[in-house]
Amino acid sequence: MGQSLLEALNVRVVGNGRKHLLLAHGFGTDQSAWKRILPYFVSQFKVILYDLVCAGSVNPDYFDFRRYSSLHAYADDLLRILDSLGVDSCVYVGHSISAMIGVLASVRRPEIFSKLILIGASPRFLNDKDYHGGFEESDIDKVFEAMEANYEAWVNGIAPLAVGADVPVAVQEFSRTLFNMRPDISLFVSRTVFNSDLREVLGLVQTPCWIIQTAKDVSVPTSVATYLKEKLGGRNTVVMLNIEGHLPHLSAPVLLAHHLNEAFSR
Amino acid sequence: MGQSLLEALNVRVVGNGRKHLLLAHGFGTDQSAWKRILPYFVSQFKVILYDLVCAGSVNPDYFDFRRYSSLHAYADDLLRILDSLGVDSCVYVGHSISAMIGVLASVRRPEIFSKLILIGASPRFLNDKDYHGGFEESDIDKVFEAMEANYEAWVNGIAPLAVGADVPVAVQEFSRTLFNMRPDISLFVSRTVFNSDLREVLGLVQTPCWIIQTAKDVSVPTSVATYLKEKLGGRNTVVMLNIEGHLPHLSAPVLLAHHLNEAFSR
Repeated sequence: MGQSLLEALNVRVVGNGRKHLLLAHGFGTDQSAWKRILPYFVSQFKVILYDLVCAGSVNPDYFDFRRYSSLHAYADDLLRILDSLGVDSCVYVGHSISAMIGVLASVRRPEIFSKLILIGASPRFLNDKDYHGGFEESDIDKVFEAMEANYEAWVNGIAPLAVGADVPVAVQEFSRTLFNMRPDISLFVSRTVFNSDLREVLGLVQTPCWIIQTAKDVSVPTSVATYLKEKLGGRNTVVMLNIEGHLPHLSAPVLLAHHLNEAFSR
Repeated sequence: MGQSLLEALNVRVVGNGRKHLLLAHGFGTDQSAWKRILPYFVSQFKVILYDLVCAGSVNPDYFDFRRYSSLHAYADDLLRILDSLGVDSCVYVGHSISAMIGVLASVRRPEIFSKLILIGASPRFLNDKDYHGGFEESDIDKVFEAMEANYEAWVNGIAPLAVGADVPVAVQEFSRTLFNMRPDISLFVSRTVFNSDLREVLGLVQTPCWIIQTAKDVSVPTSVATYLKEKLGGRNTVVMLNIEGHLPHLSAPVLLAHHLNEAFSR
């Protein structure tokens, strides 16, 4: 991608603030997921938005299956974007897969990240001896089978579960962007995420983290938030939102904006 | 441990060179494992030696079971030693567990490590879907059972297997230091090592690595060396030694010194 990275990943900078805020979307969405959050922060920040290379809004030809077989490559993209924009410090908000991408990037370049705000983050989805990730290998295999068999049907099934709360507009939005992903890319990214175990990376993080977790999230048990607080190397805070769902920026944007604001000001 | 860390971990600096070389021993040994290697490098380097907190040569009261439940704490110790000595750059040689401790430390403070030389290194001992670590969970459980049942018998059984080659003095040395470890600490460290999965940390390493692997090592299949070369984030080299054993510094010190010298000079 080279010089055209900013263009390829639809990088936008909006807002009038002095400091930089980066909003990084998660699996199955694109930067449009932040549209109900963005208005709260454009006066306070220069807000950077971009699409992950796997997003349906990015030309799938850019998705190099060899390169994007680990989250490190996504962290590369993130750092290259920040460098291209000349950003030397930012507050980072990452949802889902982008939470861990931010974690990886902050380990490599701690000086660029003044704070990480992690929404629906998990360092490992599979259960292990002393760790509850929420999924057994057999659960995951069934997910992959369903995705392969009929992607549209899988999207229609998973979207309401992921959104959790009864917020039809959020389900519709998530379904739209999830369905926009090319099914083979969506499956490949799911495998990458479910096969990765980033627990040992957590201790390398020096940046203070603010972990935002909802009370019921099909992808991430609440115990994972506590695990993150304990294992991340910096000074960390957990905020439990008394709502349901993996995508609070879609389903409860006002509440999330309130808590983001709190996180920014601490 | 605070100020007395250098004393507690028996830190020594020997040699007359300008540059610093750190020799970090692996599981079941202590700094004496380097005694046949050391003479080759004292004129070229200031050589730093120390004992891991789990070594039999360290007062077991210093072993805080809560703190040393992950290799990150060992990396902390290493960095604190280098800081206490005022070392701002060193070549690092790490064997076995200390290979991965060096990896973790170099991610946190890449500027201190000009090169990592990793001997008998493995980021994960258990097999996984697309990864051959060499061990199944059931193998490991048997090891732990044997260690618990009769530590001395286990030491006597494992030492010749680990040394591999028919070098009685090496078997004797390894048995001595392995037996010196307090059995509960030895078991705890084994569990820590076998339960850890540092594969995702590798991509965060920027320091060039020189991976030294013997042709047959009971602890590490040769494919792991290739895996490390591929996944470590810097520019890496693999050197396959056409000998057997997990402890070439004990069993083939002249050959190892030759290859270390080559690694230092590149």
